[in-house]
Amino acid sequence: MQMTIGQFLLKRLTEIGIEHMFGVPGDYNLQFLEQVKACDGLQFVGNCNELNAAYAADGYARLKGAGALLTTYGVGELSAICGVAGAAAEHVPVVCITGAPPLHAMEQRLPLHHTLADGNYDDMMICFRQFTAAQTRITFANAVGEIDRVLTTCLREKKPVYIQLPSDVSYLTVEAPDAPLDLSFASDPRQLEAAVEHALRLWSQAKRPALLTDMDADRLGLRHLMVELVGKAAVPYASLTTGKAILSETHALWVGHYLGEGSSVEAKAWIEESDCLITTAPRFIEFNSGHFTQNLPKDHTIMLAGHSVTIGSVRYEGVNAQELLRHLLQQVPERAGDNHRRLEEEAWSPQADAPLTQERLWQRMARFIKAGDTVLAESGTSNIGLTSQALAPDVTYISANIWGSIGYTLPATLGTALAAPDRRHLLFIGDGSFQLTAQELSTLLRLELKPIIFLLNNRGYTIERYILGMQEAYNDVANWKYAELAGVFSEKGNFLTAHARTEGELEAVLEKAAVSNALTFIELHLDPFDAPAALKKFGPATAEFDYGPLGPQRLSA
Amino acid sequence: MQMTIGQFLLKRLTEIGIEHMFGVPGDYNLQFLEQVKACDGLQFVGNCNELNAAYAADGYARLKGAGALLTTYGVGELSAICGVAGAAAEHVPVVCITGAPPLHAMEQRLPLHHTLADGNYDDMMICFRQFTAAQTRITFANAVGEIDRVLTTCLREKKPVYIQLPSDVSYLTVEAPDAPLDLSFASDPRQLEAAVEHALRLWSQAKRPALLTDMDADRLGLRHLMVELVGKAAVPYASLTTGKAILSETHALWVGHYLGEGSSVEAKAWIEESDCLITTAPRFIEFNSGHFTQNLPKDHTIMLAGHSVTIGSVRYEGVNAQELLRHLLQQVPERAGDNHRRLEEEAWSPQADAPLTQERLWQRMARFIKAGDTVLAESGTSNIGLTSQALAPDVTYISANIWGSIGYTLPATLGTALAAPDRRHLLFIGDGSFQLTAQELSTLLRLELKPIIFLLNNRGYTIERYILGMQEAYNDVANWKYAELAGVFSEKGNFLTAHARTEGELEAVLEKAAVSNALTFIELHLDPFDAPAALKKFGPATAEFDYGPLGPQRLSA
Repeated sequence: MQMTIGQFLLKRLTEIGIEHMFGVPGDYNLQFLEQVKACDGLQFVGNCNELNAAYAADGYARLKGAGALLTTYGVGELSAICGVAGAAAEHVPVVCITGAPPLHAMEQRLPLHHTLADGNYDDMMICFRQFTAAQTRITFANAVGEIDRVLTTCLREKKPVYIQLPSDVSYLTVEAPDAPLDLSFASDPRQLEAAVEHALRLWSQAKRPALLTDMDADRLGLRHLMVELVGKAAVPYASLTTGKAILSETHALWVGHYLGEGSSVEAKAWIEESDCLITTAPRFIEFNSGHFTQNLPKDHTIMLAGHSVTIGSVRYEGVNAQELLRHLLQQVPERAGDNHRRLEEEAWSPQADAPLTQERLWQRMARFIKAGDTVLAESGTSNIGLTSQALAPDVTYISANIWGSIGYTLPATLGTALAAPDRRHLLFIGDGSFQLTAQELSTLLRLELKPIIFLLNNRGYTIERYILGMQEAYNDVANWKYAELAGVFSEKGNFLTAHARTEGELEAVLEKAAVSNALTFIELHLDPFDAPAALKKFGPATAEFDYGPLGPQRLSA
Repeated sequence: MQMTIGQFLLKRLTEIGIEHMFGVPGDYNLQFLEQVKACDGLQFVGNCNELNAAYAADGYARLKGAGALLTTYGVGELSAICGVAGAAAEHVPVVCITGAPPLHAMEQRLPLHHTLADGNYDDMMICFRQFTAAQTRITFANAVGEIDRVLTTCLREKKPVYIQLPSDVSYLTVEAPDAPLDLSFASDPRQLEAAVEHALRLWSQAKRPALLTDMDADRLGLRHLMVELVGKAAVPYASLTTGKAILSETHALWVGHYLGEGSSVEAKAWIEESDCLITTAPRFIEFNSGHFTQNLPKDHTIMLAGHSVTIGSVRYEGVNAQELLRHLLQQVPERAGDNHRRLEEEAWSPQADAPLTQERLWQRMARFIKAGDTVLAESGTSNIGLTSQALAPDVTYISANIWGSIGYTLPATLGTALAAPDRRHLLFIGDGSFQLTAQELSTLLRLELKPIIFLLNNRGYTIERYILGMQEAYNDVANWKYAELAGVFSEKGNFLTAHARTEGELEAVLEKAAVSNALTFIELHLDPFDAPAALKKFGPATAEFDYGPLGPQRLSA
């Protein structure tokens, strides 16, 4: 069917479930914005800046399975690249579209604005190649094939991809296929059969089967199959902290987080002594492995990855993890087990006049979080504080656990709120992090979205204080009147703001927040030198690793 | 002399005039921040985010001759890279220091936070290689040589450079040279002699000598020599718009901006018909050349560059432009000419009740700008509006003329205000641009700096409207209560805010601003569809170039 290249790209984006595209206009993408405007089922969301747009697209993709980012060449895309690299680090499929200069100019190597004025049109592509799974510059000749190649890669590899759409190309008419993008991804039958047989053999001999999830359990769409497997065969399971809350943390078979020597005794025993461990390629970094003290039972591990399964030391290439898991699920025998919630939640007794403390705050917040919520926890205090709390089932827990770019979660909340308008979205973010991307609060207000935002005001970068420079000015930030920002940004006054300094005030505020039908912004006032217990350990360990045994942390200690 | 690697780097930075380092703390740079804290004469300025820090370092470098940026690996440096690329595009020497993971981990290729967790430690370096003139990863073995190599390159090439300082390396003690960095850059004597002789031969035969400046006249330190040459030999001169106000625009010999077919008749004739044109390597892009209609008298041009001079078709390598110009200045004969201000400024009569218009606003602002001011004009309305106004002499005019990254000027004002505390700093920025980097207003307030900020509220991206989508929602931005932001950010209330909707209100506000001893934030309310005359031409021409003869601009017209 005949359509313009821009229309074809938009058709494909809607086919893969993308209904919102985040970005900032620029002269090299305005012509495409005209096409977006005319596209049914896909809406452009203008952000305050491109980094925020990238974070929003990432948050959106984590719930919808794919996100889209639109920038202009050079200035726009480079402003966004930290967010794109984050999507790569965290295995999030984001389609990065950059409105590029007209092909006629690029092919003549003309020096233009938004470039280094040196006729070089390879530099941006080289940068994006570091952080995306596929890259292309669209031309009239290659458009149909390239768009399909790049989008297929995005969805199969669960990584960002990069498309340069020259400003004089997107409205050219081409012959486009009628059929939707074929995203089926069937295993090689012989490889699958052999892998299933091998896995079942391991399973049948096992006395201590166990499951260990990381973020790829979510990205590869394995969550429901894993839930079923746990239920049918009563398999104890743990997760990496980077795979938090993908499976329920209140289930009787949940044994805790596995992080090498940093694990609970129970989680360590179940995982390291398992004789049939099913896991999604766990990605151990220093923070989720007790500084690389992980010790998986390699000979007894079934490792599910994007397009291969490794059992013991045998790798079966061309196996779709969903298919393997489905076969396993059908064929393993049922086993009785306690499939109920392990512990009833203890009642919470606020101490009305007690100042808020990190120790009790996160216990309280874990109780405020309900099944079905999307929880965004900023790197640092919020993520560390919530990681040690067991959350309600069916919570989507979002944090930049590997990439750790502070400021990520506020724009990401814009993405999640648009991706799942019927869910509740809770954001926990510290003041230092909030300042990086603060302006995106205005987009949440403009679109009348209704997240509940907890702003932890503790006067600086607490996580850095515990690593080095506890009292140093370089870890301070200006003390804004955070709760007044919504009033500056909003034209309609459609928000609720509140403060809490004590547990009693917090209770009153949570009561209001629970029934609020507008964006709710709650400023929590905390002691600058207070931190969750886990952070108090994390800081010195990080300093030892980063600065070595004679580093400055020894001087200030 | 023995000192730590970090101390040596800081010693070199202070030697090249850097007194402020912009950035954001992170675990990989905290150990260096401890060293900065202990360094006399160099102060760390914490920014709200890294892009803003890069822009601030750029603004600082434009006045001080060099700037410094400190980020953390991955997340920090990639957030800043758009600003670094901008410094490359605009020939601004910024030393980019990134606190990198400990060498022991990089050499083992350990997967760490702030990376893609794939053991790859080349990706960031590859990105920065695109936009910096030299790159290095510091080790114990290479520190002294590499630091000197990279800093020398920065200052000679007038480009940003990139230093990875691993977190376990900066406090190691090395033997460092006592001598300061040798930045002298003497010409090859034979090349210089030949070039001077050739230049004087051309000059002596010339009937119409002329001078054409671009930004490199400033970057290469040629301004004062050029002023002297104009004075001694009564040489008419023009500038590219990208070299605005480096030489006085009110001098009798100033003939206007040269931009190919877009020039005034006078400027075009003087430049294109010159038989001895002295120029600093003019960098023509579409916007400063009337879409590449420049036509310099190539056979009669003396082109001064960083380390060569080209006269006609002969290139003399190894010639320092300052030296050549100094010789020329000594040897050309004096010539009488009108060295005074060409036109007395016409008196300004405000029309008290008239709404502000773009046509009259910039005329008024040009009169408010005084000799010695630093003027920062954001890309778009502000830069285009002020470019067509002749400004007072000795004004430093700053705009991201080639790179064109919107949002640049607000953080850049932080840089200029710290670089030259005794000057007045005026910022002109539109609402759309302001939103990208708005939070850096808080750092200006925290440091009690006193720029005068003119915020043009016209409800969106006016420059984009005139290119495509005049009425389209994608060119709108949320309508913040801009003037209230200072109150949210400031702890001390040390600011003045005001609004102006009419010419009468503007006069009252300017009177206050002229005597204000605090940061002054003036919100100007303008019609969303009003624009400077030059922008009304610029928009459609850009659309033709970007989208081609059958582009969507033809449909909406």
